[in-house]
Amino acid sequence: MAQRYVRVQDRQGRIYYGLLQLNQAVQLLDAPPWLQGQPMEMQLEPNSYQILAPCAPSKIVAVGKNYADHAAEMGTDVPPEPLLFLKPSTAVIPTATAIVYPPQSQRVDYEGELALVIGDRTSNCTPEQAHTKIWGYTIANDVTARDLQKKDSQWTRAKGFDTFCPLGPWIVRELNLAASLQTFLNDNPQPVQSATIDQMVFSPDFVVSYISQIMTLQPGDVILTGTPVGIGPLQIGDRIRVEIEGIGRLENTVIAKQPNIIS
Amino acid sequence: MAQRYVRVQDRQGRIYYGLLQLNQAVQLLDAPPWLQGQPMEMQLEPNSYQILAPCAPSKIVAVGKNYADHAAEMGTDVPPEPLLFLKPSTAVIPTATAIVYPPQSQRVDYEGELALVIGDRTSNCTPEQAHTKIWGYTIANDVTARDLQKKDSQWTRAKGFDTFCPLGPWIVRELNLAASLQTFLNDNPQPVQSATIDQMVFSPDFVVSYISQIMTLQPGDVILTGTPVGIGPLQIGDRIRVEIEGIGRLENTVIAKQPNIIS
Repeated sequence: MAQRYVRVQDRQGRIYYGLLQLNQAVQLLDAPPWLQGQPMEMQLEPNSYQILAPCAPSKIVAVGKNYADHAAEMGTDVPPEPLLFLKPSTAVIPTATAIVYPPQSQRVDYEGELALVIGDRTSNCTPEQAHTKIWGYTIANDVTARDLQKKDSQWTRAKGFDTFCPLGPWIVRELNLAASLQTFLNDNPQPVQSATIDQMVFSPDFVVSYISQIMTLQPGDVILTGTPVGIGPLQIGDRIRVEIEGIGRLENTVIAKQPNIIS
Repeated sequence: MAQRYVRVQDRQGRIYYGLLQLNQAVQLLDAPPWLQGQPMEMQLEPNSYQILAPCAPSKIVAVGKNYADHAAEMGTDVPPEPLLFLKPSTAVIPTATAIVYPPQSQRVDYEGELALVIGDRTSNCTPEQAHTKIWGYTIANDVTARDLQKKDSQWTRAKGFDTFCPLGPWIVRELNLAASLQTFLNDNPQPVQSATIDQMVFSPDFVVSYISQIMTLQPGDVILTGTPVGIGPLQIGDRIRVEIEGIGRLENTVIAKQPNIIS
């Protein structure tokens, strides 16, 4: 099995990067692995930590309509260049936590996606150079309030709610471009989304190069590479699981927003 | 004169928050002032530091078309709710540095704006609560590649280039809502933009409350409150200066992008 790079919080609230062992213990690192973090003389035992999103991005850049079948289901063509948008870092949640259904929306959709994690400060690079800047791969769910996406001209609100970017469970270094991406809703054994990564219009290397001509990417930044056909609505109480072959499974539940607590 | 809160870099590359003195020395603080930074027994002498953008936001949330006259010049109505978009934190530059004209665009515009700096973690607050979350006020230039804004459906590329968010020069704690905002191009004594802050459609307190219903704001995050009528193009070699009464002057030059250096 490929090495799995995690970020975890121990019972004292301390946050570490680490390597997930086969017995679920975590070998801790003294820094993020893309910043040359080295093993510490410390492990966290199984069940003694919470898993966090595997990185803490300074920004999340996403590509819209990057699978032809999904562009078609949205009633549009594939854009001639990557269509970029940003999700705020406050939207990130780890696996096994809850997406909060915002009261402003009546239609919240899942969007299973491959996520790229940047290892180096990256600016103005070619696709060939970009390949070396992608430190690893993880899974994301680009949760989207579809009604607000249609209502607002910009997608910031629709895609920017807290909890709208499940990310994880961990990072792996290698990806088979023929790997399958499948999304499962509740106990339905039939995936609601099923594609292979190589059906992307703009490849990971091309996308990173394209973005790097515009804005500098920082170590730990995340790129969402777009969702395949099959997007659909979530209901409160649902479980949604995105699987990418060779990476793992990202699973989240959906809960109602709690009334405001005035502090 | 109001207290001016700055962020500076000394000759050893160390970064500090501080208070700008009348003689241009900087009284250093041991943390950002909104995180209760206290004076250190250290000053930086005039001309011994570089001024940085006055905060390092985890995110920049901007409001589009928040002055009726500007919405009209863009050929649109004022939106019924604040129209939000994000700028990446990598776009931020301080006063007295250069905006880089990207080769992808043939029309890059200035947009002078009031910027709000958030002091506390802010989520789900009312406009009245929001008022107490705004720690201070500074000036921004929401530089925009107008041709790319029209071409792309999303504004991320058009507004997201490195250097496209001049911010500063410092933060003040109080703002007179009747204060004037004026933008000056080169040596032209006539402002190209001239408005008062109270011409905003959605007030700072309302905007922060609105955003906080969607995404959690973090200490040091920045809200751009929209630009008044009078936007226009920049050319390589231009100087552009945004002034807000009671805050100060944010001035930047425009330079061509240098050829890629392959590292």
